[in-house]
Amino acid sequence: MKKEIILFLSALLAYPTVSVLGNEPSTPARNTYAPIVTETPARAAGQTDMLEFAAAPLDTVRVGFIGLGMRGPDAVERFTHIPGTKIVALCDLEPSRVDSAQMILRRAGLPDAAAYSGSPEAWKQLCDRPDIDLVYVVTDWRTHAPMGVYAMEHGKHVAIEVPAAMNLDEIWQLIDTSERTRRHCMQLENCVYDFFEMNTLNMAQQGLFGEVLHVEGSYIHDLKEFWPYYHNDWRMKYNIGHRGDVYPTHGVGPACQLLDMHRGDRMTTLVSMDTKAVNGPDYLEATTGERPDTFLNGDHTMTMIRTANGKTLHIQHDVLTPRPYSRMYQLTGTKGFANKYPVQGYSFEPEQIAGGDNVPDHENLSAHKFVSASQKKALEKKYTHPIIREVGDRARKVGGHGGMDYIMDYRLVYCLRNGLPLDMDVYDLAEWCSLIPLSEISIKNGSAPVEVPDFTRGAWNRVKGYRHAMADPARDVMK
Amino acid sequence: MKKEIILFLSALLAYPTVSVLGNEPSTPARNTYAPIVTETPARAAGQTDMLEFAAAPLDTVRVGFIGLGMRGPDAVERFTHIPGTKIVALCDLEPSRVDSAQMILRRAGLPDAAAYSGSPEAWKQLCDRPDIDLVYVVTDWRTHAPMGVYAMEHGKHVAIEVPAAMNLDEIWQLIDTSERTRRHCMQLENCVYDFFEMNTLNMAQQGLFGEVLHVEGSYIHDLKEFWPYYHNDWRMKYNIGHRGDVYPTHGVGPACQLLDMHRGDRMTTLVSMDTKAVNGPDYLEATTGERPDTFLNGDHTMTMIRTANGKTLHIQHDVLTPRPYSRMYQLTGTKGFANKYPVQGYSFEPEQIAGGDNVPDHENLSAHKFVSASQKKALEKKYTHPIIREVGDRARKVGGHGGMDYIMDYRLVYCLRNGLPLDMDVYDLAEWCSLIPLSEISIKNGSAPVEVPDFTRGAWNRVKGYRHAMADPARDVMK
Repeated sequence: MKKEIILFLSALLAYPTVSVLGNEPSTPARNTYAPIVTETPARAAGQTDMLEFAAAPLDTVRVGFIGLGMRGPDAVERFTHIPGTKIVALCDLEPSRVDSAQMILRRAGLPDAAAYSGSPEAWKQLCDRPDIDLVYVVTDWRTHAPMGVYAMEHGKHVAIEVPAAMNLDEIWQLIDTSERTRRHCMQLENCVYDFFEMNTLNMAQQGLFGEVLHVEGSYIHDLKEFWPYYHNDWRMKYNIGHRGDVYPTHGVGPACQLLDMHRGDRMTTLVSMDTKAVNGPDYLEATTGERPDTFLNGDHTMTMIRTANGKTLHIQHDVLTPRPYSRMYQLTGTKGFANKYPVQGYSFEPEQIAGGDNVPDHENLSAHKFVSASQKKALEKKYTHPIIREVGDRARKVGGHGGMDYIMDYRLVYCLRNGLPLDMDVYDLAEWCSLIPLSEISIKNGSAPVEVPDFTRGAWNRVKGYRHAMADPARDVMK
Repeated sequence: MKKEIILFLSALLAYPTVSVLGNEPSTPARNTYAPIVTETPARAAGQTDMLEFAAAPLDTVRVGFIGLGMRGPDAVERFTHIPGTKIVALCDLEPSRVDSAQMILRRAGLPDAAAYSGSPEAWKQLCDRPDIDLVYVVTDWRTHAPMGVYAMEHGKHVAIEVPAAMNLDEIWQLIDTSERTRRHCMQLENCVYDFFEMNTLNMAQQGLFGEVLHVEGSYIHDLKEFWPYYHNDWRMKYNIGHRGDVYPTHGVGPACQLLDMHRGDRMTTLVSMDTKAVNGPDYLEATTGERPDTFLNGDHTMTMIRTANGKTLHIQHDVLTPRPYSRMYQLTGTKGFANKYPVQGYSFEPEQIAGGDNVPDHENLSAHKFVSASQKKALEKKYTHPIIREVGDRARKVGGHGGMDYIMDYRLVYCLRNGLPLDMDVYDLAEWCSLIPLSEISIKNGSAPVEVPDFTRGAWNRVKGYRHAMADPARDVMK
């Protein structure tokens, strides 16, 4: 009976029973409704975090690519345009894809890479090689984390396509492995490098928006034409099998950078909500003739997140309905506002940007309307991110979603060669991917609040403010 | 001991204790996290609902206006342009405001109305008059519901400015009074009558968007220049004293109409989240010299709502940060999409609108981009709402937020004179205002889910689909 009494008392303390409030005109403060908490594994003794970790500089970054299906070949192509790299090995289940990738090297005047294919375990042999510094994983979602763990355990830094981890198990495995092996583990999130995002981040970091309070992001992209391109329908199968925001990083990544996530702030509470599934099962019925008994992912999913510093994020997911593409990049600050989709716009308290030749017609500034096209152009010119200044033009030429893919790869190599911390660490990976399992937990529990773990396990407030590491220009080995 | 055991067992069944989940790759279904439930008062014996209620036609609608401060005089002006009305009485605390309103009548060639002022109870005398059919309440928020109740109890229909009720007590009082007295109780929500909203609703009701799954709305309007205009700062004081979305109806109203709220669907679960308060206290410090100890309303607040039919709403509130005005009117359907701010746009699966001369260049239709300007114009022409066709031009001439205020008042009179149900009933009022108390409850409980009451108490699914009541053109007394 003693055990039951203790359990009973803790239930009383932790939770009300079904809570019934009278119609009081103002609600009494009641903070007894606790969020769902997931387990944070204890850090092994002697293991330390990877905040601001930098490895010794590399004269040449020797890369092995795993996965040459949808995005892999473009990555290989981009790397042929990045100085100080050597493409050592190529791996794909399909030998023909490895052959195609070799052609990319030949067209660039480079020697063939070592080839791995034909077996589901071939990638491990690539990771075993002693002459690789970086393993670049461009496979389907289910293999991302296992490959990342293995690569790091075999002494390699690893860069993993999004989402790099699909559940809390995988997230913590990548964190623990990175911390234990002291190898970089970076998610290949390209959208943080897009031009509007970089320039707006630069403006935000220079205080133009005042204090950033609320940010938004999404992956809204009708994938109707794309589903068949995923080998054995792995992507559709994932959507069939899971509720929640299964592809959050393009939206939440840029949002987190604006909020200095684990560099002075951290996500604390997450709540999600979805619609029913309509277009998903409709699509399957139309294309296969059979309507599935179960299709879990709702046509539209949304998530709200609060941070320790009282900021909020709003993230949406919709890959099934017909509407224009949107990543919903948006920020609300105490002194200004920025929006990207469907049209780019900035607005500011006049004093934030008035004055000087930089912003024409500053007498006509108003916080209530977007700045004019010429004002916007002047602002973007003044506040172009240094990285965009450095590599933006080349990025547009090499291409890859307008250039952001190239900037992402360039910065990865830049930081590895210059011995700097990478732009995204394993905790960014964890935070951005955590929406996948946490949104599902929330939704399955009637949109209950879910506590977001402190993936740094105590270090989220040590570094003050997010910054891209920059080499001394006199010593930048990329030049 | 028996009572404790029962309580203990219900606690076990209703709630887990602080819920700890392991890092299982897929979350087991766990529906034990119950939302916060507020009390639904039992309906009195013999009392029935007001769905589709219509009063006997009125040859002339005799109106009494209470409140001639910010929006009152414009309402009086608009009524002088509506046939079949008689402005019988005017009331305001300030005699000078009543005098000003009388001038409006004189300029329109109408006789003076009876005047009530000088005492905080004068409005009751107006409501006591036997020669008034409709009391039109345009006062501050705190007096809305008490005046509505009193007016109905004295045999008058009542139209109340937004928000008509500030808490669950007031909401249920208005519902019970309307049901008991069989008097209309309509909230004066103008935004549902704006041109884009009416035409888009018409398109939605004709199936252009397929099934509407997700809708958005907001009140995003930097009120920095407006705060001083509220008598004794009643609006700022309300924000100081309450968390949550305190002004939701302009956003949630149009959204609810798209979802046939209590005409086939109903809101079931609500969750809200806010940022900290920064600009609020900063504003007070800048204008009064004193920083308040407490300022409850966060600069930005957001709410997610799910419905019985698996649809979702997303509603935001921000009256304190510098950004362009937005009501975030947006709908996502299985076959189309509509967005109003910052730019209006539609996109559709091509088959929804292709064909015929109505939509030019239909070979170039794509669900992935907004329809062209000419396609949009053609669509809007084809799908102009009948009410807009009937009264849109006159509305633009008379004015009031571009015309929507006039359409609102016109429709109110039209339905009363023709003996039809009003466009908005007391359950719309209840649903749209319920965000005020429910968002506060959610936020004060760490963004816990809150059950939205069925304000119809059982009738939400009786009427199938929202429609504006239309008189037989041959018998329309407004013509």
